[in-house]
Amino acid sequence: MTVKHIQTPGRSTAIAGLDAIFQPQSIAVLGVTNTPGTVPHDIFVNLLSAKFQGVVYPVAPRKRHIAGVRAYDYVLDIPDPVDLAILVFPGAVCEQALKQCIEKGIKAAIIISAGFREIGPTGVEREKRVRAIASEAGMRLIGPNCLGVINTEPHVLLNASFARAMPAAGNIGFLSQSGALCTAVLDYAQGKGIGFSKFVSLGNKADVDEVDMLEYLATDPRTSVILMYLESMSRGKELIEVARRVTSEGDHPKPVLAIKGGRTAAGAAAAQSHTGALAASDVVCNAVFEQAGIIRSSSLEELFNSAQLLAYQPLPRGRRLAIVTNAGGPGVMATDAAIEQGLEMARFSPETAVKLKKALPAAANMKNPIDVIGDARDDRYVAAMEAVFNDEGVDQVLVILTPQSMTNITAIAKAVCEVHDRFRSSGKTLACSFMGAKDVAQGIHILQQHLIPHYILPEWATDAMTKAVHFRHWLNRDRTGFKEYRMDMATADAVITKAPDGYLTEADALKVLKAYGFPLVDYKLTQTADEAVAVAEKIGYPVVLRVVSPKIVHKFEMKGVVLDLQDAKQLREAYIRMRENLLKHVSAEDIQGILVRQMIPAGKEVILGINRDPVFGHVIMFGLGGIYVEAFKDVTFRVVPIREATARSMVNSLRASGVLRGLRGEKPSDVGAIEDALKRLSQLAQDFPRIAELDINPLIVHPAGEGCHVADVRIRLQS
Amino acid sequence: MTVKHIQTPGRSTAIAGLDAIFQPQSIAVLGVTNTPGTVPHDIFVNLLSAKFQGVVYPVAPRKRHIAGVRAYDYVLDIPDPVDLAILVFPGAVCEQALKQCIEKGIKAAIIISAGFREIGPTGVEREKRVRAIASEAGMRLIGPNCLGVINTEPHVLLNASFARAMPAAGNIGFLSQSGALCTAVLDYAQGKGIGFSKFVSLGNKADVDEVDMLEYLATDPRTSVILMYLESMSRGKELIEVARRVTSEGDHPKPVLAIKGGRTAAGAAAAQSHTGALAASDVVCNAVFEQAGIIRSSSLEELFNSAQLLAYQPLPRGRRLAIVTNAGGPGVMATDAAIEQGLEMARFSPETAVKLKKALPAAANMKNPIDVIGDARDDRYVAAMEAVFNDEGVDQVLVILTPQSMTNITAIAKAVCEVHDRFRSSGKTLACSFMGAKDVAQGIHILQQHLIPHYILPEWATDAMTKAVHFRHWLNRDRTGFKEYRMDMATADAVITKAPDGYLTEADALKVLKAYGFPLVDYKLTQTADEAVAVAEKIGYPVVLRVVSPKIVHKFEMKGVVLDLQDAKQLREAYIRMRENLLKHVSAEDIQGILVRQMIPAGKEVILGINRDPVFGHVIMFGLGGIYVEAFKDVTFRVVPIREATARSMVNSLRASGVLRGLRGEKPSDVGAIEDALKRLSQLAQDFPRIAELDINPLIVHPAGEGCHVADVRIRLQS
Repeated sequence: MTVKHIQTPGRSTAIAGLDAIFQPQSIAVLGVTNTPGTVPHDIFVNLLSAKFQGVVYPVAPRKRHIAGVRAYDYVLDIPDPVDLAILVFPGAVCEQALKQCIEKGIKAAIIISAGFREIGPTGVEREKRVRAIASEAGMRLIGPNCLGVINTEPHVLLNASFARAMPAAGNIGFLSQSGALCTAVLDYAQGKGIGFSKFVSLGNKADVDEVDMLEYLATDPRTSVILMYLESMSRGKELIEVARRVTSEGDHPKPVLAIKGGRTAAGAAAAQSHTGALAASDVVCNAVFEQAGIIRSSSLEELFNSAQLLAYQPLPRGRRLAIVTNAGGPGVMATDAAIEQGLEMARFSPETAVKLKKALPAAANMKNPIDVIGDARDDRYVAAMEAVFNDEGVDQVLVILTPQSMTNITAIAKAVCEVHDRFRSSGKTLACSFMGAKDVAQGIHILQQHLIPHYILPEWATDAMTKAVHFRHWLNRDRTGFKEYRMDMATADAVITKAPDGYLTEADALKVLKAYGFPLVDYKLTQTADEAVAVAEKIGYPVVLRVVSPKIVHKFEMKGVVLDLQDAKQLREAYIRMRENLLKHVSAEDIQGILVRQMIPAGKEVILGINRDPVFGHVIMFGLGGIYVEAFKDVTFRVVPIREATARSMVNSLRASGVLRGLRGEKPSDVGAIEDALKRLSQLAQDFPRIAELDINPLIVHPAGEGCHVADVRIRLQS
Repeated sequence: MTVKHIQTPGRSTAIAGLDAIFQPQSIAVLGVTNTPGTVPHDIFVNLLSAKFQGVVYPVAPRKRHIAGVRAYDYVLDIPDPVDLAILVFPGAVCEQALKQCIEKGIKAAIIISAGFREIGPTGVEREKRVRAIASEAGMRLIGPNCLGVINTEPHVLLNASFARAMPAAGNIGFLSQSGALCTAVLDYAQGKGIGFSKFVSLGNKADVDEVDMLEYLATDPRTSVILMYLESMSRGKELIEVARRVTSEGDHPKPVLAIKGGRTAAGAAAAQSHTGALAASDVVCNAVFEQAGIIRSSSLEELFNSAQLLAYQPLPRGRRLAIVTNAGGPGVMATDAAIEQGLEMARFSPETAVKLKKALPAAANMKNPIDVIGDARDDRYVAAMEAVFNDEGVDQVLVILTPQSMTNITAIAKAVCEVHDRFRSSGKTLACSFMGAKDVAQGIHILQQHLIPHYILPEWATDAMTKAVHFRHWLNRDRTGFKEYRMDMATADAVITKAPDGYLTEADALKVLKAYGFPLVDYKLTQTADEAVAVAEKIGYPVVLRVVSPKIVHKFEMKGVVLDLQDAKQLREAYIRMRENLLKHVSAEDIQGILVRQMIPAGKEVILGINRDPVFGHVIMFGLGGIYVEAFKDVTFRVVPIREATARSMVNSLRASGVLRGLRGEKPSDVGAIEDALKRLSQLAQDFPRIAELDINPLIVHPAGEGCHVADVRIRLQS
């Protein structure tokens, strides 16, 4: 084995195995042809023309040479050791070729070829076999059905892809589940002067997936920001765990940004048709990103706008933005965007005001946004930038330029770079927007060369700045663990184990919640009106009656519920009437009894739930109750288990969370009690995989300190 | 006067006067200097180098010539007639110069110079005088404090601006209140291959404003789309009226797109500091754009993305989109964006399916989005495009290309143009996204030359397509008038005329609403408990008591309201208790009496209101009531008067309007009754300018057919 292992603490053997893919010293390309303009030819030429620092061997049966390089009939004919195999044979031939690679002792492979899972059942089987072959031999595998892999490190210079050109070197790592998107991204990034450390087309992810790549790039000193385009995720919980570690632990936490394709039903269907993978539901995906600290983007523009700022600039200390512009309108537009996105306009210190007044003409606007006016040359930009870089009330600086007739664009660009370097130790975040295209091009080039993030539109800069602030908040968040409750698991287990698939009865569902410490009101299942009255005398009026019957799902509609019974007379009458009425619809043996329950005092209605996602497993849901909230669809989700801080963030992330904090001078609700219920729910879901669905609807929340009460619950089991 | 008048029907003299600005045959430039790189020099050189088709005269005291052209000391020295004066003298000299221009018989002027309203009181006065001078002489004026004016018509070729370069000719008209933004826009548009018909920097709008320009461009045969950047609007109602006409009447309604700078408080403050104008509140601005049919954009990218599609392509027939792509990921992303923005994915006919199956390889995705796969060349694009252009179920087509190694980009671009031309009569809308920058540049250039809208990202294309569909809906909307009610104006007038500024008493406010036909429940002001009982016997129990006192604003907190009194005993007790209690806080003479009112049956709570905006006058507000709605801030506004369809659109434009249409199988509410109340409110506001504020909170809405009732109202007058 000739791969150089850079030993990094905490790297698993499996992850270290990826070095053979990204840092090979020798590569065999299996299936090369002599026809330019085809993948099996171009990929080989790309390896050569990217100036790969190792050696490449074309394997092409019955060819003497490819692109001037001596070819071999079989991989086994190669006289030297080989680190990495790249397969461009047709899909059907790959199995055989892979076996030969293993025989040759090759430890990693990239299967470019299509013809696997994405073509249907035959392909699915083929992919399974390929995976099994590799896995048995301990071989790591990228693909199949991918564009390949790029590593820009100068001692490697690997372009093992059929992309048109090798990208510039940079500190951004990029992963994509869509190979074709890669070609667009490479071309797009080139136009913006963005460089990459590693560039990976994951294809069908038969072996290496985004979780492996996150682990690998976490230890890559050349990667400081990781971007992903994903359409499906097969290892949900691992993704959360690994991404969380990458984005928040160690000396250099790395921001991870992702686009998830297939957000809509139509998009998910399209994604499935081309990758053959089932997409997780979008709300769950949002939850995963939230819990993992992954910054979600909805377009390439947004993705790269954020990536540039995070890759090139120090993380903002806070939200306070100073704008320096030579144009009023764009200053106004940038201010609007900054405020709407969630930044704050910095208020300058008196010293800054004095400096600005001294340096700028009278007609200039000295307040934020600082307007150095249309005839400004580099000296005014320098003065204004110095002033705000020196102001302690400023966290971030945005420099806007419009190409007016007196604007010396390149001189200003150079001055911006100079000031930036001079204030490097300030730790402030700088971005620029030289607005336009042709006239400003040279200025932009100077900024890009200097790794100062540039945006054609100021609103893109402020969007990136906002996302960077969010990442700062993520790093600074309360690091909490998982609260462990001591529950009466035995009781819950007894109920759940003996119950068949389907809905639990209300009494059983309440028993489970009680065992898990949920706040219930006193209740008892009764068989006669006398018994009900006796129970009510004990628990106290007013009470509620609810029928318990597996045959009656819609209790309210069937008049199986009566509220607010004030005394024995009312109770007795209601009990008899309800029973008589129900017996018209169901037989006596279908009625297990009638619950007598304390009436819950008034409060705010919220909804808590558990669902099971095919990819991520149990998911907890939280929302405000009532008809308006249904109209606004204001609910939030998290994957189980949830941390202490996650429960808090669920409550806070509702758009209408103000209702719980107390609007119009109302008392705030007992938010702590809700958080407690959410954490108990998480533990319940973890303990009982058979719970397929659970709805507490509503949970009635009382004012702070007075707790909450479960008013109704449904639990469905499914093995 | 040598200006050629193109007589267009319906043009006012004032608007025709703008021809001297846009189509002059002779121009005097006052204040020119010989110093390159300064406005007073560059603007003159720009006129010459743009190949102006008339004659230009530099006016520069004590200079023999400017840029090789004979100069004159004074405008009066010019021996020939002059159509247009351009003033680049310092602001303080402009008055004198303008007077000389008028003496010379010049009919229009552009004042480039700054030093007016934007510099404070001195400038405000100066601007007033300049306006008065021009107005008295019937002279039309652009500016002051602007970049100038451009007209690309080949028989004019006017670059009366200090922009760096003349833009390409095109059918987009652009107006901007920010001069500096113009320079950025010109450079930006050049990069995108976008051309302009007229390009106008409005500056301080001392005379010509956006309303004039809309009227002018409405009759300009070379302009088919109008774009505006506005920070303030001084003629609100005229803007609505004129924009409405431009966007929806005549043979060629023209889309108007606008960015409003100063959406946030910080943005508005910044705008005020550089234009000296007060911005209308943003919610009102949204209402104005809605009522005027103006398409609102929030960034330049969005503005030009929409403009291109509207300028170059037929207006979409509907929402049904077909996507043709050579890359799965971008197809997924485009599908997600299309659905989220409000388009529909077209379902193809069986014939289309057959055609696609015949023309594409087996691995291609024949469903929408059509994936012609990575190795597709122009032939597959042509086949797929032909199939969808022929499919009656398709309204719009988006062609996506990623630069893969086998992609023949320019051939595909040419093929797209060819298919586009061949199917021109289909009336379908086409947009393209060749994703990337460098490799795809030549393909993009071919598309742009052919006026096929191109977008770097597919989501921008779908956004533009969605906005174009909205414009189609605007054109197809129900054209309704203003409903005129016969009201008891005399009664309302008697109340309002005699009342001082401030809040009306509840009794007076109810009297006004009653006169305007609002649905009130029976009520009467009473002085004693006996009287109250007598009233209640007449109007029927249950009743409500409410104190009427100018000293008591928060009635509920002061226990000045009691609900749901069921009989004479309860009523009498409550009456006496309330009076006793109130007398602890206010004197007997401050209590005008206690209202006895029918208790309103349950229903949905909504809020209706009137406010007065400094720019647009009376504005009607509508929202759902209750605490959750406050949390969601779900309210909508319209400027008075509102049309029949506007009242309907107010109700529908709430995010939670589903609550009124009936969720969870509830009966729908009486939406017609709400619309009626809104229209009555509009008429009330129009009839009484003194109404500064009115709140009906809540209006209780009953199920369809059962109407609604005003539960509470406050009216504030301010002369």
